[in-house]
Amino acid sequence: MRGGDGGGPEGGGVSRRQLLGLFGAGAAGAAVGAAGGASVATALANAAGAPDPARAYAFHGAHQAGITTPAQDRLHFAAFDTDPSLDRDGLIGLLTDWTNAAARLTQGLEVEEGGAVGGSDYAPPADTGEAQGLPASGLTITFGFGPGVFGAGDGASDRFGLAARRPPLLEPLPRFQGDALVPELTGGDLCIQACADDPQVAVHAIRNLSRIAFGRATLRWSQLGFGRTSSTSTAQATPRNLFGFKDGTANVKSEEQAAVDEHVWVAASDEPSWLAGGSYLVARRIRMIIENWDRVQLGEQEQLVGRSKGAGAPLSGGTEFTEPDFAAEGPTGAPLIAPTAHVALAHPSANGGTRMLRRGYNFVDGNDELGRLDAGLFFLSYQRSPQQFIDVQRSLAADGLNEYLKHVGSAVFAVPGGIAEGEFVGQALFA
Amino acid sequence: MRGGDGGGPEGGGVSRRQLLGLFGAGAAGAAVGAAGGASVATALANAAGAPDPARAYAFHGAHQAGITTPAQDRLHFAAFDTDPSLDRDGLIGLLTDWTNAAARLTQGLEVEEGGAVGGSDYAPPADTGEAQGLPASGLTITFGFGPGVFGAGDGASDRFGLAARRPPLLEPLPRFQGDALVPELTGGDLCIQACADDPQVAVHAIRNLSRIAFGRATLRWSQLGFGRTSSTSTAQATPRNLFGFKDGTANVKSEEQAAVDEHVWVAASDEPSWLAGGSYLVARRIRMIIENWDRVQLGEQEQLVGRSKGAGAPLSGGTEFTEPDFAAEGPTGAPLIAPTAHVALAHPSANGGTRMLRRGYNFVDGNDELGRLDAGLFFLSYQRSPQQFIDVQRSLAADGLNEYLKHVGSAVFAVPGGIAEGEFVGQALFA
Ligand code: HEM
Ligand code: HEM
Repeated sequence: MRGGDGGGPEGGGVSRRQLLGLFGAGAAGAAVGAAGGASVATALANAAGAPDPARAYAFHGAHQAGITTPAQDRLHFAAFDTDPSLDRDGLIGLLTDWTNAAARLTQGLEVEEGGAVGGSDYAPPADTGEAQGLPASGLTITFGFGPGVFGAGDGASDRFGLAARRPPLLEPLPRFQGDALVPELTGGDLCIQACADDPQVAVHAIRNLSRIAFGRATLRWSQLGFGRTSSTSTAQATPRNLFGFKDGTANVKSEEQAAVDEHVWVAASDEPSWLAGGSYLVARRIRMIIENWDRVQLGEQEQLVGRSKGAGAPLSGGTEFTEPDFAAEGPTGAPLIAPTAHVALAHPSANGGTRMLRRGYNFVDGNDELGRLDAGLFFLSYQRSPQQFIDVQRSLAADGLNEYLKHVGSAVFAVPGGIAEGEFVGQALFA
Repeated sequence: MRGGDGGGPEGGGVSRRQLLGLFGAGAAGAAVGAAGGASVATALANAAGAPDPARAYAFHGAHQAGITTPAQDRLHFAAFDTDPSLDRDGLIGLLTDWTNAAARLTQGLEVEEGGAVGGSDYAPPADTGEAQGLPASGLTITFGFGPGVFGAGDGASDRFGLAARRPPLLEPLPRFQGDALVPELTGGDLCIQACADDPQVAVHAIRNLSRIAFGRATLRWSQLGFGRTSSTSTAQATPRNLFGFKDGTANVKSEEQAAVDEHVWVAASDEPSWLAGGSYLVARRIRMIIENWDRVQLGEQEQLVGRSKGAGAPLSGGTEFTEPDFAAEGPTGAPLIAPTAHVALAHPSANGGTRMLRRGYNFVDGNDELGRLDAGLFFLSYQRSPQQFIDVQRSLAADGLNEYLKHVGSAVFAVPGGIAEGEFVGQALFA
């Protein structure tokens, strides 16, 4: 619980006092006296999958958290440009400061000792304070390096002396058919993905990390995601995207250890070795023209996706987690799943066996002059090589869904492996 | 629970099956077997105030829901322009369709019988489907009429024959000192406020209501709020705004029946009588320059607000809910709460006793070219007369907080009273 007097909306001291009985955390299976305003329905719904506000994920470990971590409900993502004056030592300093702050924030602490109200009256508070009283809320903070850090990409210079250490595959993504990229939503030297079950906690993290970067790195673009569109654990129910379909069914799940090792983590034998235990992150801001989509017949929507809109079952039959059978034919001899369906084109069988871990979020950012919601999918995927994304995205050139999509933002980052206590994020890169 | 197979993230069939024991909802005080992945900590935190996903508020009643209703966690707000071709009957038709849809949505149902997947394969689905499987989530939908409906305001005509029924006080708000209003974020003939504890449910409501309006009214502007900044019930812990301060402490709370009647509801004896049981809604999109705010000393921040940043207690002493004492002086004879502090200027004692019910939300919508978060407070207040807002906002001209604020959006609406089953929202206006 962050400093302050515990008055936050979801970890509030006031309501907590309404409890008649208190129980030690973690004693699963014990009986809970539902008291105050809480009904059994609440406890029931919560036991059925709502996130535990007190949940805190370890910041240190073999991999950065926020990749195979069960996808949290909310996202704040930020891409930064490094300031022209920043040099190698400055970059190391920034990463060190970010590491120290993130290690605290993810544990539900304020960004720095002293925090929002424990410092001097005559100094700006160390923490901005809007998360006072809020628990960790499952916050993970994941850092990545864009091509610019290695002197690659438009107008980048090798200010950090890292050109020789650039992962050969880390360069701005190629132009894909139909791309309508906006420069202000594209690229970035550094990125931070903050995921949490409470949006105030995710926003608080990005805001404070951005503040720490003052004079060293500047926010280039940022994106709030209000709802997850993927499961990354078999224990999670599959959420829905704004086309109304379940999204994340065939995702690489954290429990599939072999698939995670094959498709998500950079192996020690891969190039470069400093990235071992890391991954590549692709971010795409995909606008969905939902007003047009909503005029499409149900049957055609399902054909375009290749799955049913209710259960999310492949059109070849079965239930949500049945493997699609692309050879299955209907009475007329036509394939039950069209070869141009999204899942047919995205499936490993159409892409040399390639998979990826998707971790996207729904977004709605106001509306355009025509009154259409600026809504869509903020697509995030983690893969062992950017080539996996490139292959699938090229395969999707034939996807009928594209008529209802517009890729307006794009970025790729090398996400270093996890660190031990006392190290800073990305330390292996500078070794 | 909305149609579909219950696969939504927070009402999921999969996780529900993990429960070892099931209990009837509503039997408060009974023992709950915390099973599957749920820990006692979860149940504990939930009992301490997290919203019940299954909660559904009645749509019909003396007042519209969403005003004195305990402030839900998330918001999607939309302002519409009526299409030039819309006439009086068309407007009644739209309100009727909106009423029917809202009555269903707020009960956790799909927008129409048939819904997302229960209709014909050869027709677009009646419901857009992204809320399949999600429970009511405390959704309220609140409708309002802007001045344009009555032929008032820039370029408005009396297409609906309602000019004679215009509430005399309903006209575009006067220009306030420091206003930096953007036309695209200002005004609107009709508004819909959707509040829910799950953002996907609020977004689903606005999207489907906007779809229903096709050809009759067009989205003019819209705003997502990720976290509430007010309590409207004494049972709710006070949340925090992006300045890090508790917000909503001295709000009119639903339990203060006399204050609600005096300051929030239009009385039967007020003009016009068709608005009895209704209220006036003011919406202001207030950008907060948080990067500058974060450089202000803690002591000065507290002086500007007039309350402590931790507990939210008035600087004259006491705890959060102690009445501020504006006469109290410090050792030097200076008032403990500066006369230009926000709470001093906003307090009833500075405004002829006036109060209002605040129901605002925090927002973050990306960032500007300078890398500053486009963040702030989407201020919503309900009052018996727009004059209450005008008086307080004028008083706030001397507010030191203004240095860190920019009012970019503004609108005012007459919010009709509640309806009985079989009536449409605003029916009394056309009687
Ligand atoms: C807004 C755009 C998109 C929408 C609405 C969308 C929707 C979906 C849906 C509904 C499914 C089926 C359920 C599931 O297995 O998750 C799916 C599967 C998948 N999508 Fe997408 N998707 C989008 C963009 C992309 C992009 C850009 C990629 C990668 C380039 C991608 C890669 C995949 C993959 C790999 C699968 C799993 C296929 C399988 O193994 O069966 N999707 N998508
Ligand atoms: C972003 C802009 C604003 C911020 C950050 C802000 C913040 C606060 C805070 C921290 C409080 C003290 C806690 C409480 O009683 O809720 C407060 C009180 C209040 N504010 Fe604001 N406020 C803002 C804008 C406004 C506006 C535009 C109005 C109305 C014109 C307003 C009216 C009030 C009122 C009536 C009170 C209660 C005063 C009392 O009775 O003690 N505020 N505000």
